[in-house]
Amino acid sequence: MRHLPFVIAYYLIIIFIMATPFKEASVEEINQIMQRSHAAFEIFQKRSIEEKSIFLDTIANEIEALGDALLQKASEETNLPIPRLTGERARTTGQLRTFATMLRKGSWVEASIDTANPERAPLPKPDLRKMLIPLGPVVVFGASNFPFAYSTAGGDTASALAAGCSVVVKAHPAHAETSEMVYSAIKKAIATCNMPADIFQHVHGTSFESGKALVQADHTAAVGFTGSTGGGKALYDYSTQRKNPIPVFSEMGSTNPVIFLPDTLEKNTADLAAQYAGSITLGMGQFCTNPGLMLAVESQALHRFLEHLGTGIAAVQPAKMLHAGIHSAYEKKSHDALTQKGVTVVQQATTGAHDIEALPTVALVSGETFLATPLLHEEVFGPYSLMVSCKDEQELVNVLKSVTGQLTTTVMGTVKDLTDHPKLVDLLPSIAGRILFNGVPTGVEVCASMVHGGPYPATTDSRFTAVGINAVKRWVRPVCYQNWPDSLLPLALQDANPLQIWRLVDNEWKK
Amino acid sequence: MRHLPFVIAYYLIIIFIMATPFKEASVEEINQIMQRSHAAFEIFQKRSIEEKSIFLDTIANEIEALGDALLQKASEETNLPIPRLTGERARTTGQLRTFATMLRKGSWVEASIDTANPERAPLPKPDLRKMLIPLGPVVVFGASNFPFAYSTAGGDTASALAAGCSVVVKAHPAHAETSEMVYSAIKKAIATCNMPADIFQHVHGTSFESGKALVQADHTAAVGFTGSTGGGKALYDYSTQRKNPIPVFSEMGSTNPVIFLPDTLEKNTADLAAQYAGSITLGMGQFCTNPGLMLAVESQALHRFLEHLGTGIAAVQPAKMLHAGIHSAYEKKSHDALTQKGVTVVQQATTGAHDIEALPTVALVSGETFLATPLLHEEVFGPYSLMVSCKDEQELVNVLKSVTGQLTTTVMGTVKDLTDHPKLVDLLPSIAGRILFNGVPTGVEVCASMVHGGPYPATTDSRFTAVGINAVKRWVRPVCYQNWPDSLLPLALQDANPLQIWRLVDNEWKK
Repeated sequence: MRHLPFVIAYYLIIIFIMATPFKEASVEEINQIMQRSHAAFEIFQKRSIEEKSIFLDTIANEIEALGDALLQKASEETNLPIPRLTGERARTTGQLRTFATMLRKGSWVEASIDTANPERAPLPKPDLRKMLIPLGPVVVFGASNFPFAYSTAGGDTASALAAGCSVVVKAHPAHAETSEMVYSAIKKAIATCNMPADIFQHVHGTSFESGKALVQADHTAAVGFTGSTGGGKALYDYSTQRKNPIPVFSEMGSTNPVIFLPDTLEKNTADLAAQYAGSITLGMGQFCTNPGLMLAVESQALHRFLEHLGTGIAAVQPAKMLHAGIHSAYEKKSHDALTQKGVTVVQQATTGAHDIEALPTVALVSGETFLATPLLHEEVFGPYSLMVSCKDEQELVNVLKSVTGQLTTTVMGTVKDLTDHPKLVDLLPSIAGRILFNGVPTGVEVCASMVHGGPYPATTDSRFTAVGINAVKRWVRPVCYQNWPDSLLPLALQDANPLQIWRLVDNEWKK
Repeated sequence: MRHLPFVIAYYLIIIFIMATPFKEASVEEINQIMQRSHAAFEIFQKRSIEEKSIFLDTIANEIEALGDALLQKASEETNLPIPRLTGERARTTGQLRTFATMLRKGSWVEASIDTANPERAPLPKPDLRKMLIPLGPVVVFGASNFPFAYSTAGGDTASALAAGCSVVVKAHPAHAETSEMVYSAIKKAIATCNMPADIFQHVHGTSFESGKALVQADHTAAVGFTGSTGGGKALYDYSTQRKNPIPVFSEMGSTNPVIFLPDTLEKNTADLAAQYAGSITLGMGQFCTNPGLMLAVESQALHRFLEHLGTGIAAVQPAKMLHAGIHSAYEKKSHDALTQKGVTVVQQATTGAHDIEALPTVALVSGETFLATPLLHEEVFGPYSLMVSCKDEQELVNVLKSVTGQLTTTVMGTVKDLTDHPKLVDLLPSIAGRILFNGVPTGVEVCASMVHGGPYPATTDSRFTAVGINAVKRWVRPVCYQNWPDSLLPLALQDANPLQIWRLVDNEWKK
């Protein structure tokens, strides 16, 4: 039963992509693909840091060389507007180049050296040196809502290649042709850089069997996924059923609670409403960091805020969602939420929605009803947000404690608000991977300090981020060399530090 | 069926500990214990770094204050000799103090800062700051073979407390009284340091139900285990069945393959044999890094080596194993291995074994038979090692590729050997967490560069180590603060760097 939403989404997608001309990979083919991926991985490991960096840069160049045709194809398949896709392409090529820079800098391998002490009593101390090494072939399941940045050559692929892994991408059926175009760019980069042909492979598949086969193939070493809770959990479960479980990083979205504290709500009512009308409907709400849940203590200011927010939402022009499956799911999930006892619609967009356009919606419920209604805790993927009006701070704390793991949680407040509500503020880090002050959760900066992750069910592994250079840490493990001859050690661990990287030498950081 | 060895071991242990006077915790009690652990965790998080460091140091002091009585009780319960236990106690208190030092140094939180750029177009860049925070209550299942260093106040407990987590230890039934004594020391430290009483709790349990309840309790955030493959995998499976899966770090031992290359085998025959007769029988082979598998290419030198090794093994005095369950398992598993077709006994100790003493044994099999006989790949926990004689280097590579994930793998060779066998040497890091040159895998140094871990089934998570300061990384996850007011940030992330720790500031390491 817990996979039911996945099953529904699956059939909706099947209907949607029936016309897609690409051949479905069989289980046997997938096993062969993963075997070839492993062979390519072994060759790739021998390539120099500079060769790998140039490869990543070249993929970025080749994606840009596809020009407007890529943007047009993506827009046609996803209904996303060209300016948004232009930005997303820049983010994608930027990510690839950032990982190339990370490789050239070299310190990401967390090299550590403990030198020998043959004189130590009662036992001599051996020489021990540690660094990170790649896990092996990585399977990437791209996201429907980011055809570039979290798909074929997106963050998972870029970070896995940077780690030294080979990659197999299962094209998202909702933008399979865009995926083919990006794949053609990667193939050119492989040829130009003389990389093993199978370092990156691209498969099509819409069946459960193909996803399961990719996760369970002998040579698969790790999996990256961005999408629904049902899909991400199913892949996780496939992994745990392997004879050797492997890491599965499913980023499954969340409701991203935003807490509006009383002082700011009183002082900045209209500004807050305008800011959040924008964030809730940005990209028709199709971001995993969309603020789907708002929390506040009942007050006159809250009512004024909702009025302003309603005005903002009313004015939003409905737009097409990514595909028919996403649209149907939005219709169903928002309908289910809005028809729960005690839920009232604050405002919907006043321009009618046609075809697969989404109708932006804000609703209201009491803290008591929210706590008693599990369905209201679920993400409604789209331009939807639910305000939970709590009778007092304690109820707000209880509501916050009742929500499951989140990618983000946000506090809107004055400094007075923060100091007035220490209990609430203390709670925030336990809930999410990223906590924001006076901002909107939509917009995920690509940098070293970003954490795009969080406790389950936001992700299947809260210890890692899917965005920023630390995303590379998902595809590696440490290995320790004991008493190894210096000349046969990896460069990162040799005495002379030929890579000039930061290393922890006898417990002191040195370069 | 896959839990069968666990079931057998369980009943053997039950028989062994029937006289143990400690009350079994019920499922209901365990849920309450975990709830209290979570409440203590929330208090503990507010304590200063110095308070936490002093707490760890005080636990070490209180363990030492138990004096010889602790050693005697442990020896009585485990049959381990006093000198070995004296060393293990030093290691245990050393670990606690090392983690206290790590806390005081402070850089372990991996602080990272990306400063804001309000002028950036098209979007301003927010201020983002990242650090590691504790996961929550950790459940520790101690090891039978390390009553101090991997049990009650061992590496898992020390690293989890250092991370800022609360800890619940399930006492190992084979040394329950020793565990109670260490618990009494921790209780004294809690009182002295005015820590919340439930920051460390101690339960007894021998049933499946108690282990399952500890892993599946709502408030359990992570699990550490050291022991058998069956036990560790069962705990992992319990976690994956939770509604929110949690990390389970099971360290489940391995066969630790040792490759003897031809040049060294020819030149150092007798020395190698003496070294390995010692390593195989050290502590009656009851180490997870015991060299249970040896590999070499068929040669005259190999036969001479086996003769010398046989002489060494013959002279070893059998000694009592840890408990009756371990002894019965050794008898059964070594018997099963030795009765496989094609396996010959090279040598057993010539002094008879009585009671629960183990008979040191070395056996021989061809590469072909080893590859065709899955049972021979399994660990025989005790003073046992199997030499696989391969017809050529390719068969040796095939044998090495056929073994599952390992804690360690070792190459005995000259530098000529290493350069003569690049294919083989390249393979090593993919197999194990630690690779050794000209040494013995027994003996695990506690330091920053140690990796005591490895691919499944050596552990359930190859990305972490159970030994050394990096063991703390198992119990934490990153959290990112976006645009947070400086004065309300954790000290590690404040502008002024009051802790004077290493931080990655705008992609440069600074202190």
